[in-house]
Order: sequence, then C-alpha cells, then structure tokens
Amino acid sequence: MPNILDKINNPNDIKEIPKEEYGELAQEIRDFLLERISEHGGHLASNLGVVELTMALHIFMDFPKDQLIWDVGHQAYTHKILTGRKSGFDTLREFGGMSGFPKCKESDADAFNTGHSSTSISAALGIARARDLKAGDEKVVAVIGDGALSGGMAFEALNNAARMKTNMIIILNDNNMSISENVGGMSTYLGKLRTDARYDNLKTGVEHAILKVPQIGDAVMGSMRKVKESVKRLMVPGMLFEDMGITYLGPIDGHNIDSILTMLRRAQMVKGTALIHVVTKKGKGYRFAERFPTRFHGVNPFCIETGKGNSKKTSQSYTDIFSEELVSLAEKNDRITAITAAMPSGTGLSLFKEKFPKRFTDVGIAEEHAVTYAAGMAKMGMIPVVAIYSTFLQRAYDQILHDVCLGKLPVVFAIDRAGIVGNDGETHQGVFDISFLGNIPNLTIMAPKNAIELRKMLQFAVELGEPVAIRYPRGTAYLGLEDKIEPLKKGKAEVIFKGDTVAIMAVGSMVKHAENARELLKERGVDATVINVRFIKPFDEELVKQLAKNHKIIVTMEENMENGGFGQMISSCICHNELQVKHINISVKDQFVEHGKVYELYKMLGFDSQSVVEKIMNKLDEMR
Amino acid sequence: MPNILDKINNPNDIKEIPKEEYGELAQEIRDFLLERISEHGGHLASNLGVVELTMALHIFMDFPKDQLIWDVGHQAYTHKILTGRKSGFDTLREFGGMSGFPKCKESDADAFNTGHSSTSISAALGIARARDLKAGDEKVVAVIGDGALSGGMAFEALNNAARMKTNMIIILNDNNMSISENVGGMSTYLGKLRTDARYDNLKTGVEHAILKVPQIGDAVMGSMRKVKESVKRLMVPGMLFEDMGITYLGPIDGHNIDSILTMLRRAQMVKGTALIHVVTKKGKGYRFAERFPTRFHGVNPFCIETGKGNSKKTSQSYTDIFSEELVSLAEKNDRITAITAAMPSGTGLSLFKEKFPKRFTDVGIAEEHAVTYAAGMAKMGMIPVVAIYSTFLQRAYDQILHDVCLGKLPVVFAIDRAGIVGNDGETHQGVFDISFLGNIPNLTIMAPKNAIELRKMLQFAVELGEPVAIRYPRGTAYLGLEDKIEPLKKGKAEVIFKGDTVAIMAVGSMVKHAENARELLKERGVDATVINVRFIKPFDEELVKQLAKNHKIIVTMEENMENGGFGQMISSCICHNELQVKHINISVKDQFVEHGKVYELYKMLGFDSQSVVEKIMNKLDEMR
Repeated sequence: MPNILDKINNPNDIKEIPKEEYGELAQEIRDFLLERISEHGGHLASNLGVVELTMALHIFMDFPKDQLIWDVGHQAYTHKILTGRKSGFDTLREFGGMSGFPKCKESDADAFNTGHSSTSISAALGIARARDLKAGDEKVVAVIGDGALSGGMAFEALNNAARMKTNMIIILNDNNMSISENVGGMSTYLGKLRTDARYDNLKTGVEHAILKVPQIGDAVMGSMRKVKESVKRLMVPGMLFEDMGITYLGPIDGHNIDSILTMLRRAQMVKGTALIHVVTKKGKGYRFAERFPTRFHGVNPFCIETGKGNSKKTSQSYTDIFSEELVSLAEKNDRITAITAAMPSGTGLSLFKEKFPKRFTDVGIAEEHAVTYAAGMAKMGMIPVVAIYSTFLQRAYDQILHDVCLGKLPVVFAIDRAGIVGNDGETHQGVFDISFLGNIPNLTIMAPKNAIELRKMLQFAVELGEPVAIRYPRGTAYLGLEDKIEPLKKGKAEVIFKGDTVAIMAVGSMVKHAENARELLKERGVDATVINVRFIKPFDEELVKQLAKNHKIIVTMEENMENGGFGQMISSCICHNELQVKHINISVKDQFVEHGKVYELYKMLGFDSQSVVEKIMNKLDEMR
Repeated sequence: MPNILDKINNPNDIKEIPKEEYGELAQEIRDFLLERISEHGGHLASNLGVVELTMALHIFMDFPKDQLIWDVGHQAYTHKILTGRKSGFDTLREFGGMSGFPKCKESDADAFNTGHSSTSISAALGIARARDLKAGDEKVVAVIGDGALSGGMAFEALNNAARMKTNMIIILNDNNMSISENVGGMSTYLGKLRTDARYDNLKTGVEHAILKVPQIGDAVMGSMRKVKESVKRLMVPGMLFEDMGITYLGPIDGHNIDSILTMLRRAQMVKGTALIHVVTKKGKGYRFAERFPTRFHGVNPFCIETGKGNSKKTSQSYTDIFSEELVSLAEKNDRITAITAAMPSGTGLSLFKEKFPKRFTDVGIAEEHAVTYAAGMAKMGMIPVVAIYSTFLQRAYDQILHDVCLGKLPVVFAIDRAGIVGNDGETHQGVFDISFLGNIPNLTIMAPKNAIELRKMLQFAVELGEPVAIRYPRGTAYLGLEDKIEPLKKGKAEVIFKGDTVAIMAVGSMVKHAENARELLKERGVDATVINVRFIKPFDEELVKQLAKNHKIIVTMEENMENGGFGQMISSCICHNELQVKHINISVKDQFVEHGKVYELYKMLGFDSQSVVEKIMNKLDEMR
C-alpha cells in the first residue's frame, strides 16, 4: 500500500493530499511518531495530541511565509514532519542531530525559538505588529496549551493583544494538562467552557425569549447598550476573553480537521486577535499515553507493545533522594511546606503531596508567583521549599532577589536539573543558576557531591533560617565518597583527598569527575588534592588561601557559565589576595549548549576527566 | 484648634478617633503629606489617592497582628503616618532616614517589603495560606493598583487564589493609571465596570423580570445550573474575576470611608478570596496633582502654591539624550521601533510616541512580555529598542536570555537608571544588570562615558544587528570629555589619558570620577592612565594585557555588584593571562544599597574619587 507520508517531503506538500486521505495521513504520522520516539526518546503525549491540529494549520498556512509559533515547542514534531524533516527523526535530540524544539536555524518554517512556557503570544504579537508596519499579509498563529496559559507572561500578552488592532490567531490547545494536571481558576474556567459546549442551542433559545418578551423589553429599554452586552454574556462562551477584548471561538474538537479549518478561516476574518479554543486529548491514539499522559510526556526509549521502558531503573536519582529526604524532614517539622510550578512529579514532590496535601502547593506554570508566595509563607514562620528546575528558575530572578533575599526570608530553593541536562538542549541546560544567583546578597548557595550529602544539605537548609539554594543535577545520584561525611558548616568546603601540586575545587556533580581526574593524574605522577566546594556562596576563602601555599595550580570545575560562575569568584579571590597560584577554570565559555548525551556534551565542553587532566598536564608542562 | 493627627502616635490609634472626625483627619493627613513631600520630595499623587482607603483599612485591621501588603509600596505614606512614623517624614528617603517604601525592619506593621510591581497578591496568598496552616485568624489584605494588575505575576496569583479556600481580601485600587496612563484589555474592562457602576438597579430589574416570566422559564428549565450562571452574568459586574473563581465586590468610591468599611466587612465574610474594586483619584485633594498625576507621581521638592519645582532644570539627563537621539535615528530608519513597560515619560519615549505613534508600544507593567514582543518584532526585521529601568529589567532575565539572545535577535536594550539611583533605595538601585546580563551569550553590553557617547552608542546599537544593551545612569548627562570621540568598535575600550603606574578602567558613569581621581593622584605625584571601558562584554582583553605591561595596578570602577560584575571579569582575565599587575575592584560588595543621596551612597560604597585615591595610594604604599 502506498504510504501517504512518503509524499510529504517539503513544506506545503500536505496541500496536495486529497481531503479523504487526511485520516489515513494522521494515522501514519502517529505511527511514525510512535516508532521514532519509542526508539530515540522524546516528547510523546503532547505530540500525539496535536497531529490533526498541526495538519489543519499546515493546510491553512503557507510556509515559510506565514508565521507559526509553538508555545514551549516540544509539541512541534508533526510540524517538523510536515516541513521536510522526517529524516531528522533518525537523530532526534542526539548530539549534532535534530532538536526536539523549534529552531530557526533548522528550518525557516520555524518562526521562533521556543523552549520555555508562555512566550508564544508575546512573540506572535511582535511578529504581527511588525508585519503591519511593513504592510505585509503573513498569517500569524500562536499555539499555546492551557497549562502555559497559567504563566503570567501569557496574560500580559493577551492583555496587550486585546487592545491592538493587529490580526492574529491564538490557538488555545486545551488538553486539561500541563506536564501534570492543571491547577487554578483559569483551568476551572476552561473546564466549564468545555462542558458547556453543547448548550449552544439552549443559549440561542434564551436570547430569543428575552428579546421577544415585552416585560423584559420594558425593564431594559433604559439602557440598550448594557442589555446587548448582558445578552452577549448569555450567548457567548469565553466571556472572560471577550471581556478583555479578544474574540473567542469554540470550543471545538481538536481531532476534527474540518472543524479546525472552518474555525481558522473564521478567525482570519476577525479584526484583531481571535482565540480558538481547541480541545485535544494528550497521548491521542496510543492507549498507554492516553491513560498516563504525565508518564508519557517526555520518555526514554520504550517498547510500543507494552508501554514499558527498555532500560530498567535500578538506581535513585537526586530527585528521588530529595523527595524522600524532604518527606522525612517534614514529618519532624510541620513548618516545612513544599511548592512546585506544575512539576510535582518531575521535581519529586508527588510524595510530599501525598503525605502532606495541606502543606503542598502546585501553582501551575507560574515560577514568579511560586517564589513570592513562598516568601509570604516564610514571613509567617513557615519554611517553604521551592522545587524548580534550574532553567525555569530563571523566570523568578527578580522575585528571589527582591521578595526573598532582600527580606532575608528563610525560603529553600531546591534547584533540580542544575548543570547539563542533555537531550532537551540549549533551552533547558541548567548552566546559568550560579551566575544569576551568585550576585544576590543574603543568599547561600550549595551543591552536594553525592546522594547522602544532598540529604545533609537539605537538613542544613531547612534549619538555616535564611534564603538558601541547593543545586543538583538531573540523573542518577552519585553513591561514591560515602565515607566523606564531614558535618556541613556554612561557607566551609570539604577536603576529600589531600595531595600537592594541583588542587581541584569541584562543585557538586563535578566532584566525582575530580575524583576520576585524580586517579588519572596519579598515573602521570601527580598527587592532586580534591576539594568538595559545598558552598558556592559564601565560598571558603580561607581554604583557597591555604591551598595556594602548597599547590601550583587550583582547578575549579562547575557545570555553569564562566561569567558570574564559581571559577570567576576564585580567580577574583586569587587576584585580590595576590596568591601565588595558577588557576584553571573549567566552566561553560560564553555559548549556549546544544542537545546531546551528557557525556558527549561534557567532552565538547572539556568537562570530562580526560580533558581536565590534559589541561592540567599542559599547564604543569608550561610551568616547568 | 486641636490637631486630630496629634492623637495618632501608634498603630491602631485611629480606632479612638470618632467617626465624625474622619473627614477632618483625612484633610490633615493630606496637608501633612503635601507639606512633607513638597519639602523632601517623594511619591505624591499615589499617596494623596489612598488617604481614605488607608484610614478605612486601619479602622478595619489590627496592627501588627493583621497583614497588610501594599503592592509596589510607594503609596504607603499614610500607612506610615498611622503606624507611628510621622516623625520619620522629617528624614523621608534620606540617607539613614525613613524609606519611601514598606520595610519590615522599620515597623512590624509593614508585613512585607515591596518595591517592584505586581507582587502583593502572591505574598498575601502565601501569608494567608501559612495563617491557615497555623490555624491563625489574622486578616490578610493586599492593595494592588489597576496598573500593577497588568503584570503577569498578579494574574498568576489571582489564578491561584481563585481555587484556594484561603480567606483573603484584595483591594483593587483603581485610579485608571499606572505611573502613566494604563493600557491593555484589562484596563478597558475595568473602565467598563466603573461606568456600569450605577446600573445596579437596572440589573436587579432584569433579573426579576427573567425569573418571573413563564416563557423564559420554559426556555431555560432544561438546565437550571446553566441558567443560574447566565443570570449571574446579568447581575454581577466583575464577571471576569468571578469566572476565575474570585468574589468581586464593587466598584465603590475609594474616598468614602463608610463604603469601604462596609465592603471590607462584607469581604471578610466571603469564603476564599474577595476582590473589592475601589475607585480612587490619583492626586486627590491637590489640584496640580489631580490634573497632572504623572508629573506628580514622584517629585523633587516643589512649591505647594504654584506646583512648580524649586530647582530649575538646566541640564539634560541621559534620558533626555536617549530620547532625542532615538527620534533622530528613527527619522532615518523606519525599522526602528520603541517599547516601554508603563514608563513612556520616565524612559524618555514620550517624544518617540508623539513622532511615531505606530512604531511605539507601551505594554503596561509587563517587562517579560515587552522583551519577547520585541524579539518577535526583531525576527521580522525590525530593530526594537526596549527602554526599561535596570531594576525592572530584572523581571525579564529569562526572556532576554531565551527569546532574544539564543536566537541572536537584534533587540536594543536601553537600560536607564543603571547604577545608584538614590532616594528610592534598595528596591530600585540598578546595580545588578551587569551581573545578570554578563552571563548571557550573544549579548553585547555597553556603557557611555558622557552625553555624546550615549548618542554614538545608540547609533552603533541599532546598526549592530545583534542583541545589545546600553546602560546609563539616572540624572544629568556628563558633558565633559567631549573631545574624546574615538569611533566605537565592538569590544574595544578607549584610552582617555595615558599615564603609568596606575590604570583606571571605568565603566560608563564612573569615567568622570576616574577623571577626578586622576587629578587627585597627580597631586600625589602619580600619573594615572584612565580607560573608558565602553564595552563591558566583550571587553577589551588585549588592552588589559597591554596595561599590565606598564602599570603596577589596574583599578576597575563600576556601579554594579562585585559578583558577576566587570571587575570580576578583569580579575579573571588577569589571573588566566598570568599578568603581573595588582587589581583594585571598586564595586558593590555583597549587600543591598539603601536610600540616600547618590553622593552619600557613593561615599558609603567607596565610589567617590577621594576613596578610590586612598585605596590606590594604600596599595602603592604596600608595594613599596
């Protein structure tokens, strides 16, 4: 049987496919996605949910002329398939391969780089406004999930779109989910709209009745405009959007291409911004993903038949350790509360939620609110633990600085996915947090070397009574060095191995690589000191001074940018104390870090033990 | 005549004042405010607008037990008067004196430190939630302006408040203004609510009519719940809030203490969050402020009778220069657009708005949206210039990084109020931008030494075709060194004076102080080199290497934090290039910087020429 998908090799090819074959094509796309994602890993449930929506958009729009912006962007796989990137799925999210997110440099059909949530309406509005200034006629469409709509930035954009006369279409892709279940007033409201969808006829009936009945006429004639608006309220679902000044269309079935096309054409006629409320099912067409959309949000390779992962999980991640330890601490201290921004599962807080539902808050995709909400709690004597991925915490820089640290409030930031995260690539690497947190007064920043130290640091943090951040990486928690358990003391580092000549100061996850480097250096006749930094801020200045006395080189290792990073603080310390020691700074040099496996990226960045050892040996050679 | 205000010396004293005297007290408070602010400067119009509202809150609440959170906080002067801080107005915003914002350390009646916009609902919700967990009965009230409501964070908080069963009152202080006029869909909506306020009776009539008429009954009986909701839509203004799940009360006259008290008591009975829509007049009671609320938002000392400033403005500020030059560039290049976040006047964009209304956008208090909106425009070939104060740009760190710099889009950031701003104090000092921008790849960061260089840098920036930021301080533009006009070259610094022994590398505003320091050093027999850094990133590494060859000390001067600042980049450069030169780093050490006059704060921070010279001489002495 000829494959319809074979005919789709370039943008707009879908327009040549006869209407009758849309259903078959959708099925082929789902099969293709399932096959490739089960093999390479990637985002599954969200992509299965938007197959028909994406097809409709590609029938409706012309690429690359028209501008389609995917919020977050992990749901753009079908868009990639339809724009000539089928073969890219052979290297999906691999080093040097195709990204799992829209990338302008990958295709000119990708209008805007996305990765973080709630940005699409802002970008689309800017694009639409620029089009108007240039008197262009490009269609501009933003696709945003109901989860992303809880991000304040999306509201800021809606608020602006409302009063501009700029033509633009917003697709509200409502699957009643972010990565986990959605929360908040908006979510409840959308739920009402969904269930109210079928009473259109009823409302029309009410309207007719009102307008025809003389008694009513009498009562309302005094103010016709007001009444018309009131009637509109009876008529129009989505009044919340209409109240803001945005034309609301829907809700419609997001798996019916015809309906979507009809609505898109109607929306295009609207003057100003039109919002189409499209209801989709996350994981659509693959039963395991439909049933467990959170588990199948982002997946590792798995077996299609069983839905089970190929690799069995045998070891605990840092997230697991955090999860356990926080619950254990909260059992002993009822002032501890926990806050997540739409990631109870990803951050490991599901367990806490289960055990202490009252002390748990999922604020939705709303990092800014999460932090200031925590500050409010801390002000009243609680000890809130805010668990947010490093990359998403970037959203809350101002709130951490102003609302938490200025008042020196005891909020604990549990920063998961700090460092290189791998396949999600440049929009998700957690390599900025030391830099953006390091300049904030009153904030203590820590990083654990292994599983047990994360537990100890969490204990330390909840007892500190001041703002404190703990950063730890994605993936398996290191179980080595478990005999190194010197008690934590604010601002003090831990000497793991005493050597001479070279002292390696390693931050968190880098300690085990420093340990490896030490072994390799030993083979080359160099006995290295290894320091577990523990406290990035305030760091152990006294120790640096001591190290300088009996070492020729201090090496710093961190999964963070060079500028504003730990290494730069050490350079600065060496310089100002006029210490007679060389410094090798292992960190991310002024660049974004692409997707790939963590070890590949380490190699590229010179973070692997071998590269570090080479650098050290070269420097020692120079000095001879 | 005995003064009522004399009886108010401690929190809750207002409760002893008889009701009949409220009007007189309000007048006395206004007189007091006008007198003190005209003398010391400060925020006027917003404070005059909330006299009665604050009085009502103080009659309703008990301090310090109850929790009152002022959004932004510059409108808390009456609150300060009513909590025993009248005498503080003698030192309002002065070094060591009373802050112009709520400060927990100043009074335990100040529930939360504020300064930036749109945080109050988040903080209040955290406070209320903590109260519930502790089974307390504190009243929790957030007062937020309609301007602040355009900030996405406020929406995130509303969205969360809606579904929590936590009792809390939000006062929407609607004066139809932020600092300038309000914009956006929400603003339009609130406007409608205001004008609809008097048709309460009409709506009641409609309701009765509908419920009594059998025809309607027939039409709607099929779905009672739906109808009740529809009827509610006819009945209740503020349906947008109700739709989200927040009980809306109002709108009411914000200058009628009785009405406010009635509504506060009603709101306190509501289960969950109640929002009271209070309409106030900015500048109320002082005719000049009522007429020109923007001009009287934040003022320098002025004459009460004439409304005119005491000091005549004779010289141009950096803002003025930026304003002029941008218009001049935009006349020649129609791709240039301008974006402000609610500060057309403060950022100097009013002129641009007037000349090129279509190319101008005021997004309201919505810095995140502003930046990504600009990115969208840039993607379509425009050159957007985003003018935001340094301190407020903190809100958009993630958007600058992800939406602008990752895609290397040519957005120009005009960062006004970079450096020490003076009287507004720790929440407004622009001393973090080098740190939070310095770690972002693809971003060029510049600072001009004087007026003419700001012009040149703006020209350079709009032509660069990449993300670029220009930081410049509050206040008078420096007119010295106008003969130093070496053309700008990316990454190259400018040698202003060639000397030996000591090289001072000064960032932007610090150049003139370096010039002074050079004079003072000359008297002490030291011939200093003075470098105008120009490019903070990428900085002129070659020059640093050269300087190290024939100088003993490199001094860096910047109005920014030490961590992540320019000086630390230079330390790092010295260390890694193993340069034989000492480094003195003049910057803000790990601390928040309070309010005071700029020269006083300079002295405190060791930024003044005299302090710098002392440090240099000491170091030279050490080296001898």
